[in-house]
Parts: sequence; C-alpha cells; structure tokens
Amino acid sequence: MKAARLHEYTDEMSEALSIDEIERPELERSDGVLVEIEGAGWCQTDNHVVEGMWTDYVPQELPMTLGHENAGVVAEAGDEVTLVEEGDPVICHPVQTCGICRPCRLGEDMYCENSAFNGLTTDGGFAEYLQTNERAVIPLPEGVDPVDIAPHADAGITAYHAAKKAVRELNPGDTCVVIGIGGLGHIGLQCLEAMSAADIVAVDIKDEALELAADLGAHHTVDSSEADVASVVDDLTDGVGARQVLDFVGADGTTALGPEIAAPGGDHHVVGYGGHVHAPCQALVDGEFSFEGTLVGKYAELQELVALVERGDVDLHADRYDLADVNTVAEKLEHNDIEGRAVIVPP
Amino acid sequence: MKAARLHEYTDEMSEALSIDEIERPELERSDGVLVEIEGAGWCQTDNHVVEGMWTDYVPQELPMTLGHENAGVVAEAGDEVTLVEEGDPVICHPVQTCGICRPCRLGEDMYCENSAFNGLTTDGGFAEYLQTNERAVIPLPEGVDPVDIAPHADAGITAYHAAKKAVRELNPGDTCVVIGIGGLGHIGLQCLEAMSAADIVAVDIKDEALELAADLGAHHTVDSSEADVASVVDDLTDGVGARQVLDFVGADGTTALGPEIAAPGGDHHVVGYGGHVHAPCQALVDGEFSFEGTLVGKYAELQELVALVERGDVDLHADRYDLADVNTVAEKLEHNDIEGRAVIVPP
Amino acid sequence: MKAARLHEYTDEMSEALSIDEIERPELERSDGVLVEIEGAGWCQTDNHVVEGMWTDYVPQELPMTLGHENAGVVAEAGDEVTLVEEGDPVICHPVQTCGICRPCRLGEDMYCENSAFNGLTTDGGFAEYLQTNERAVIPLPEGVDPVDIAPHADAGITAYHAAKKAVRELNPGDTCVVIGIGGLGHIGLQCLEAMSAADIVAVDIKDEALELAADLGAHHTVDSSEADVASVVDDLTDGVGARQVLDFVGADGTTALGPEIAAPGGDHHVVGYGGHVHAPCQALVDGEFSFEGTLVGKYAELQELVALVERGDVDLHADRYDLADVNTVAEKLEHNDIEGRAVIVPP
Amino acid sequence: MKAARLHEYTDEMSEALSIDEIERPELERSDGVLVEIEGAGWCQTDNHVVEGMWTDYVPQELPMTLGHENAGVVAEAGDEVTLVEEGDPVICHPVQTCGICRPCRLGEDMYCENSAFNGLTTDGGFAEYLQTNERAVIPLPEGVDPVDIAPHADAGITAYHAAKKAVRELNPGDTCVVIGIGGLGHIGLQCLEAMSAADIVAVDIKDEALELAADLGAHHTVDSSEADVASVVDDLTDGVGARQVLDFVGADGTTALGPEIAAPGGDHHVVGYGGHVHAPCQALVDGEFSFEGTLVGKYAELQELVALVERGDVDLHADRYDLADVNTVAEKLEHNDIEGRAVIVPP
Repeated sequence: MKAARLHEYTDEMSEALSIDEIERPELERSDGVLVEIEGAGWCQTDNHVVEGMWTDYVPQELPMTLGHENAGVVAEAGDEVTLVEEGDPVICHPVQTCGICRPCRLGEDMYCENSAFNGLTTDGGFAEYLQTNERAVIPLPEGVDPVDIAPHADAGITAYHAAKKAVRELNPGDTCVVIGIGGLGHIGLQCLEAMSAADIVAVDIKDEALELAADLGAHHTVDSSEADVASVVDDLTDGVGARQVLDFVGADGTTALGPEIAAPGGDHHVVGYGGHVHAPCQALVDGEFSFEGTLVGKYAELQELVALVERGDVDLHADRYDLADVNTVAEKLEHNDIEGRAVIVPP
Repeated sequence: MKAARLHEYTDEMSEALSIDEIERPELERSDGVLVEIEGAGWCQTDNHVVEGMWTDYVPQELPMTLGHENAGVVAEAGDEVTLVEEGDPVICHPVQTCGICRPCRLGEDMYCENSAFNGLTTDGGFAEYLQTNERAVIPLPEGVDPVDIAPHADAGITAYHAAKKAVRELNPGDTCVVIGIGGLGHIGLQCLEAMSAADIVAVDIKDEALELAADLGAHHTVDSSEADVASVVDDLTDGVGARQVLDFVGADGTTALGPEIAAPGGDHHVVGYGGHVHAPCQALVDGEFSFEGTLVGKYAELQELVALVERGDVDLHADRYDLADVNTVAEKLEHNDIEGRAVIVPP
Repeated sequence: MKAARLHEYTDEMSEALSIDEIERPELERSDGVLVEIEGAGWCQTDNHVVEGMWTDYVPQELPMTLGHENAGVVAEAGDEVTLVEEGDPVICHPVQTCGICRPCRLGEDMYCENSAFNGLTTDGGFAEYLQTNERAVIPLPEGVDPVDIAPHADAGITAYHAAKKAVRELNPGDTCVVIGIGGLGHIGLQCLEAMSAADIVAVDIKDEALELAADLGAHHTVDSSEADVASVVDDLTDGVGARQVLDFVGADGTTALGPEIAAPGGDHHVVGYGGHVHAPCQALVDGEFSFEGTLVGKYAELQELVALVERGDVDLHADRYDLADVNTVAEKLEHNDIEGRAVIVPP
Repeated sequence: MKAARLHEYTDEMSEALSIDEIERPELERSDGVLVEIEGAGWCQTDNHVVEGMWTDYVPQELPMTLGHENAGVVAEAGDEVTLVEEGDPVICHPVQTCGICRPCRLGEDMYCENSAFNGLTTDGGFAEYLQTNERAVIPLPEGVDPVDIAPHADAGITAYHAAKKAVRELNPGDTCVVIGIGGLGHIGLQCLEAMSAADIVAVDIKDEALELAADLGAHHTVDSSEADVASVVDDLTDGVGARQVLDFVGADGTTALGPEIAAPGGDHHVVGYGGHVHAPCQALVDGEFSFEGTLVGKYAELQELVALVERGDVDLHADRYDLADVNTVAEKLEHNDIEGRAVIVPP
C-alpha cells in the first residue's frame, strides 16, 4: 500500500515526507482493528514532528508514517473485538491504550503507560490502511462523513478538552478569552458556545480569523496587533479580568498575556506549544494564577465531540488533498496558508 | 501606642522598621474590631515588603505598621458586631473583606475587590493594637494561646491552603513532593499527613529541616544539594512521578524541578515566590502539567486550621521576641537563621 | 402602606391574605435597604405557606406579609451601604444573610445561620415597601424591567440552581429528563439549554406544557399520562438511562420514576416538594442512585441568572395583577390555572 | 474441584450452599486469568443472594458458586495478559469489566455494560479455582497475605468507596456520623481517619462495636438503643449537624436519621440495604439533603485500599473457616454472630 513516511528530520517542508510502497499491516492481537483510511487530517504537530521537535519527549523510530487524525472504514477486526466489525465507519482516536494500567483504569487514558500514538510513536494514517485497536475506534453515527470528521480525532478533541476544562470554571457573566482562532481555536470557540453561557473574547492578528470568530459566536474580537489586549479585557470585564484563558497559540507573547488579563484565580490553558511560559512566581501567587498545560482529549471526550458534531454544534472547514500532495500541505501550513483544516485522502 | 513601622524601602534589614509612638486606632465602622495584640508572627513576606517587592502588586502608603500574623484579645467591638465581644481571644485573618463583592459572595474572600491587608496595604499588628473587622476575626477555642497560634494567621493558612488544594488530587498510593521544610513547609507537611494518605517526599538542603520532616511524618527525605531529585522521585514512584508538588521555596531551581518530577496530569503548586516559573509550553502540554499559584488561605480555611491545631494535628515551633527586637528578627530571617517562626510580642 | 398579609393558616385560597394598612418599615441597621416594590411574583410556595406547610421547618409569626420574589427601586439605603443608592433598580434575593457565619463564609449563603427569608420568616414584598439588606440586593442592568424579572428572585434561581447542579454531570450525548414544565420547569429547561449540550427529555401531562418545552428546545417530549416514561427513556438512550433527572413536581409518582429512568450513577434532583421520596435502599445501591434535595439558589447564582436574562437566554412569561387581586391569584394557582408566572404589582 | 454452590433460594442458612465436585474452569479468552483461591470472604450480600434478594436486580442462573471477596495465586494467565503471571499473589476485584464500553472508558468500571460479577452473576470464589480476567486482578505487595486481605475485595472497597465520597466534603472541624460499626463500618471508619481530619461519631447498638469504634479512632460513640442520636449530634456540633452520614446498616430506622442529623447540604450515604429510604420531599428540599446510594468501589479504589493496607492504616479482623463450614458461617452472620469478617479457605 502507499504511505507518506518521514525518513529524516528536516526544516524543509517541501521534502518532509516521501510516498513509499510498503506492506499493509497485519493484525497482531485479538483486539486489533485494521482501518481503510478515507481521510487523515494534517496538523501543526505533523510539522513539529518533521522538524524533530518531539524527539526529546517520546520515542520515535524512522522511517514512520505520519498522520494522527484518522477516519475510515473497518477492513478487519481481531478475534475478540465486539465494538465494531468489517464495514463500519469509524473515527480513530490517535492513541492506542492498554486498558490495564492505573491511568487507564482511572479513565485518564491519555496518561496510559503502554500506549502507542499514531504518527508520533507508531505508524499513522497518511496511508491506505492503519493498524489500531478496539480501544481507539469510535463507530460513526449515520450521516457523518469520515473525511469531514477526521480532523476532530486530534485537533477537535484537543480543542474540546481544553474548552471542557475551562467550562467547569465558567458561569454566566464570566469572560473567557480565546487566543488564536485557527484550526483548533475555531473548534474550541464553538465548544465553549455549546457548553457554557460565558462571554467570549476572541484574540487573533488576522482579520479573517476574527471574522470567523464573530460568525461562530464570539461576543468580542480583538486584533492583538493593533489593540492592547489587557486594557480591552479590563474594560470589557469592568476590571475583573478573564476567568479563563484558552491559548491555542502558545507563543512567548501569548503566554505573557495570562497574568495580565486573568481574573484572580484564573487559569491560562496552554494548548499551542511553540514558545515558553515565563513569569515571576509572585505574579502567580498574587492572583492565584495558573498555567495549565492541556493534552489531546481522551477517548470518551472524542465520543462527546462526535455527539456535538452530530447535534450540529460544531462545524469544521476542511479541504481535501491527495496523498501525493502531502508536502504541499506541510508547506502551506508552515506559511500559515491553510484556512481551517487540510485532510489527506489516500488513493 | 508603640508600633514598628516601615518608613522607607530598604535591603538593609537592620534598619527595616522603626519603633514609633502613634495614636491608638479608633473604630470607624459598625463592624470594626480593635484587638490588643498578644503576638504577631514575622514572615518572609515582611522582608519582601521591606525590600519594596510588593509595590508593583498592591497599593502601599508609607509609613505603615507591618505585621499580618496577629492574635490577641478584643479590646473594643463596633455597634453591630455579634461574633465577638470585649475580652474574647481571637486570631486575625490578615485580610479585612467586604462581604459584598461577587468574590466574597462566592466564598472566595481572598479575591475580595474591596479588601485591606494588614501590614501589606494597611497597618498591621507589630503594635499594641490592631484595627480590623468582624469578618477577619476568629474566636479561639479554650486552651489555645494567642501567641502560639499567631503565625497560623498567614504562614499557617498559606501552607494549609496549598496542602488542601493538593489533597484533592491525592489518593492512597500517590506521592506528594514537598520542597522546602521551613516555616510554611513544616506546616504544610503536617496538613498533608492529617488530611491524606499520600506518601510524602520532603526535599530541602538543610539537615535539620530534613530531620524535622522525618519527625513530622515524611516517608522519604531528599537532600537536593546532594541527590538528583528527579531520579530519586522516579525510583520511589516506579517511574510514575509525583502526583502533586508543593513548592514552598519558589526559586528558579525549585520550579524547574516540576516538569521533571511530576506524574502526567500533575500540578506544581507555587507557594514561595522569590524566583520565576520558566518552561517550554511543550513541557506543559506533553505531561498535562500545571504551575499553580497559591495565595493566602481563606477565612474559612483559617477556621479549619484552628480546628486542626485544636485536634493536635499541627504543631508549630515559635520563639518570642520583644517588639523592640523586630529588626533583629528581620536580619536573622534574611540569613536563614530562624528555626520555625518568630513571634513579636508587644510591650 | 398597603400590604397583603397572612393572619391565619387556611386551605381556602379565596381568603388567604388580607390587604392591611401598616407602617412603612424603618431601616434598623447600617446595611439596611428599603425597596419600593414594583413587582412581586406569586409562587407555589406562597400557597404552601398559607396552608401552614412550613411551620414544622421554619419559625413563623403571624400576621406576616408574604412575597419572596421581589424587585423594585431603592428608596433608602443604610449608612454603610456601598452597593446601591436611592433610585437604583434592584432584584431582591429572598434571603437576608449575615455574611459572618461559617456557611456564609463558604459562599453557601442559603445555609446562613442567621438569615431572614422574606415572606417565609419575615415580612415579604406583597406591599408597597420591603425592608431588606445590602447582601440581598442586586442592581439591575440597564433595560431590564423589575416587574418582568421579579419571579427570578425565587422561581428563577431555584430552577437555575437545580439546573446548574445537573449541568456539572452532563456531557454532550448525555440525556437529562425534566419533569414538570411549569413556572420553574420552563426556566430550568432554558438554563440547561444555555449551559450544556445534553439531550433534554421534557415530561408533563399538559399539552401546552409539552409544546412550550418543545419551543424552548427540548429534544423530546413525553406525556406521562399516556406513555410509559421509563420505556421511552430507555429507547431514547439505547438502554443507558438518564444521566440526570430534574423533578420540578416532587410528587410521589414523579420521585418513583427516578430509580427506573436514571443511568448508573444518576441523580434525581428533588425541586418540587408536595410528595415523598420512597424506595428500597437496594434500588439506590444497585444503580448508585441519589435523591438530591435542591434549595433556592444562592445570591451569586441570582447574579448569574440576571446575566443569562440579560443575554436573552432565559425568557419568562409573567402576567401582572393588582395587589388587591392577590387571593384570586392564589386560587388560580391552586387550580393549576396560571400559565407562566403571576406578578403582583402594588398600587 | 470443590465448590460451594447455590442450587435454590432459601431463607434457611443452614442449607444455603452445597459442596459440589465440578470441573475446574478453562480460560476462554486471551485476557483470562485463573486464580487458585487462598481465601474468600463471606459477606452479608451472600446471605442476601441466598435469599433471592438480588433476582430483581441482576440476571442469575443457578446453580452458581458464590463468593465475591477473593484472593489467591495466579494458576494460569491468557495469551495476552501482561499484568500478572503464574505464581503471582493477587486480590480479585469481584467484577470483570470489558474496558470498552463508555462507563469503562470514563473510569466508572462499576457501571460497565458488559460485566460479570463473581458470585452474583457468574461463578465466585468459594471454590478451589476462580476464573476472572486481567482487568479484575491486582498483584499484592510483598508481605501481604491473600487470606487476610481477601475481604477487602468487596467489604473493603465498598466501605472505602463510601468513605472516599464523604471525605471530599469533610473539612477539619466537620463531623461525620458513621452508623453501624460492623464488617464494613469498621473499615470505613479507618478510611475516614486515614484520609480526613473530621470528627467521627460512631453509632451502633452493640457495646463491643462501640468499643471497637473508639479503639479505631472514633471521637464519640453513641448507643442508639439508649440515646437519642439526633440530640447527641446536635450537642456535639453546636447545632450545626453532621456534614456527612455513612449508613452501613440501611434499615428504615437508620435512614430516617438522615434528615434529622445532617447539616444543611449534608449527604446520607446509603451503603447497607436491608430497608428503605422514606422522607417528605420537603425534608430534602429544606436542608438541601441527599440520600446517596453507594456501590462497590472501583478497581482503582481497590488499588488505593491495598495501598492503605500496606501502609498499616486499615486493619481487618478475619477468622478462617474451611470450605465445608460455609453454611455455619452463613448462619452465624444471620444471627449477627460474626466479629469482623469470616474468610473461607478452600482445601
């Protein structure tokens, strides 16, 4: 089968992956599931993997097929699989978890001690077939197109997960600042709208992003290249500040906003991860402020997000690209030239 | 009356405060309470105030009487005060809150929008009398000495508050790392012991501190000047890491430990505040790690801490000093030369 | 001034209250607030008070002016009041709390140990003026009519409070059953819609109520006089059951539904209170099922509800009646003949 | 192998089970685990199963081997099992869960939609061998005797689970009433002691039970056959009431105590299940009171309890009986004649 694989780390996105002819994977365990890929979303994290930015954090062996936002149709199911059968359309959570370790038992399957992550620690879905397991697949409701929903497998649940953490702290009348209305941010914003009655302030530097935010229900938009975000938030909240901040950018400049704009006890959820968090401890103590890292959402959260999509509460704009054009997509994203999400469609 | 007052910010602790003769405060409101001070704890934050380290965070007008860890006997109570009367021994929460603003209504009185903080934004208790209000005083149970309990009014509740936040996430079998077994840390450690069944790893660089930690129930002690804390924690937890970290130091070197030693989803509670938090966003995202600032505890938490003290669950070692010796105390603390807490006793 | 007062408990609603001429109250404390009433909602609880149903639960001295859903304009404010001044339009939380006792300090002001409840333990708002205090009034945003919002002071926050408790447990894809789409239920349903993405099943026995539910966003409606609620819920949830049940009726027949329709771990929130809860312990244990009583919402929750009203998320249908017609309203409600809410307007 | 099996429901405990010679089970799945039983605790629920009290709640096919509190040594492990191997000492959670359904994914494995419960819906451990699965076994720490720990597999985690729910709501200074200091109650009490700093009031009708309670750390004991529990609790709490009630009896008379002794917002945790809950809805509403059913604890909670046992925080008094004497044990328990727990030891 054809697969887009990373052979060497590089900053040159035009040479990121090569299209190889490799063996179709064989199921090895009783809970294995082979999925014929219909769509696989390309993500900022794919660029980061290509650049070698994850080698300090996870084990990686090259060559490796990238692609962690996968959906398709079950081609084969292991002996003891009961959740799905051949022919079922599914979305694939990117992480195959063991169901045995303590984190899995606590429902914290993103902390699984024996996991494999498609396109990050094991082969992913920029290919004709993907090997995964029963604990990673979710049957799709009727009428949901695998290609359209694929990017939710990572971009979607990451945004949903962060939004859900924020929602717990948001009451009607509270303000939530959302920084970065791109691939993840525009989903996070819709999740906030669907699950809270907070006032949402969207921050970005692109006009189209701010227009999209307004269309999706943001109550206020701020162009941070022109306005002073802290003083705008101060005005909008009568000096109280933002109860929660969702930072989908994670650059030095955006994390620096946190202590300035958060209300006492507020949290700055770090979702994007290009930069650093940096602040005097006193700034954290004084306002009882937190920087909270947020990871990819859990399997159960992907179920919840699929329910939101089915209700029509979350729209996602996705463009389709051939597998052969995978490096073009990588380059475009590098130049901030993808609106919404790009989905790779295998032959 | 006599009061130890700050006239000018200085790094020279031998000249920190001067003993002035000033007017005894007059009650101005129906909920006012005048307390004759029996003991007032000296705190690291007093040194920080003297150095001018709080001017960026709160409004301060000099001269100001310092002292935010106060206990004594009610000398006079306003017309509408019902909680206490003349002669009642009380401990004073350092913050006078309004009871009207939304944070007060939510029970988050440390976020009060109209508060005054003894010794930080208004006169404190290194004096014969302290003016405070009904919402700041807690009657003492019989048999509890005001001088002994005074330091709990800030050091105590700050440690308790941080411990309580950690306890919510600690199950039997989990590990909590406590960094810095000084004035606050040795209280926090006892609170953890009383309210959880977690395994406690105490980290310090002084032998006496580590011995104290072991006496108070720490399951393991680590001298961070000799051992590699990360590898010790890794061994003790079979590679899982610390579910919670309580950092009573808050130096650059201690906050840097957080991402290294925390289990996935773990929190690093920043209590001490001399240094900075600094980390790549990716380190927060990868382990879903948080830096959480913690403030002084709430009034209700001081009630809870008084209950712990009454049960005998929390001991505090305090030495008594005359008001006239206040700068000696400041200097000793500067040189890390106070064991436990110093309590100033007015004439 | 004129006031509608209860002199004797009775089951005869046509003789419930008498219109008396009494003294206008004088402010007695520095935090007192005198409100000129513009509208005061009549509530099922008023009928219950008239019947003497609350004498076992709270202290009551007759004669007493009823009315606990009050809004109007500040006529006079005590010396130390800062939140409002003469002329400010306000909604009045029905409970004057002390701000001093431990429950108040925890933000649980409905558990205040020194409270007075308008129209239940002290004079209420079916009168020209109401005496209350600073901790009970909330300034109204511009454009909100005191008469329209008055019923939110009790019906509204009770429904909001129950909905908020349920929302904490409701994820997208979960089902919430709402029993009784009357005065409280139709508000609770709107709160659920605004603050969650759960599927809502509305249960009632009146066609108009079910139509209203559908208009307000219920995903399914069930006429419990015709259909078997348990089997309908079973079908709608693929056998899982309702994650949460909000019972605005609280009759023997509706509480009996709980253990039958709730999912494992589900809660049955008891809001209405005419009947009993009754079940074998084994039924609670087997499904880890709870009957949870819910009280009137807190002051901070009334702030949140006012924010929801201001956003346009919660509509309330209210008809206006003269103070002189107060017993007509009592009778109509007795016969289930009030659509939405009745608001009494003093002369 | 020998197994004690139920052939017919009966109220006659002397004829409860018969000792049969049956086939040793064969592993059927890749995750199967065969355990050679060393000890199996007898539980009040076993009496209830013999009486047929569970037939309305769960599917049961007779004959069935009873016994759901099992520990022993792994005799055989399925192909894909990684957690344990032949020879490992283990404690067996009574429920084999699927790891696939949504409740399992949320960490709520007691709500598993595809579970089997030893001795309740499938064969249990009053036998030489027990068939279970990888998700049900927990390796024992060195030095822990399987026979001693066996009763924790159900009695222990049920008590722990209830205590853990209560602990979340208990602050220092709060009071928790524990009703019934028998097999479960005496464990629950120790868990409360280990994980909270609440004041514990133990209620029972047997002197030995109350003495045991005092030995294990109860701060007050009440003989409910002599004293009026409500007025004792009122005195002990200065009129506030019990913040939490743990009812290990669950008789009509004990559940009736709840609304009388609970503080506002308090919960009555129903653990024992012989009787009913019954109260006017108004009693639940007035004090925002809840009856909360509690189920057997989760797998992760059994891990936590094993950690408590290893720390020495929870002692369990267990007497050993031969498999042949199983009906004697049933009778003794029927007559309230077992101190602590009885553990059945197969030949």
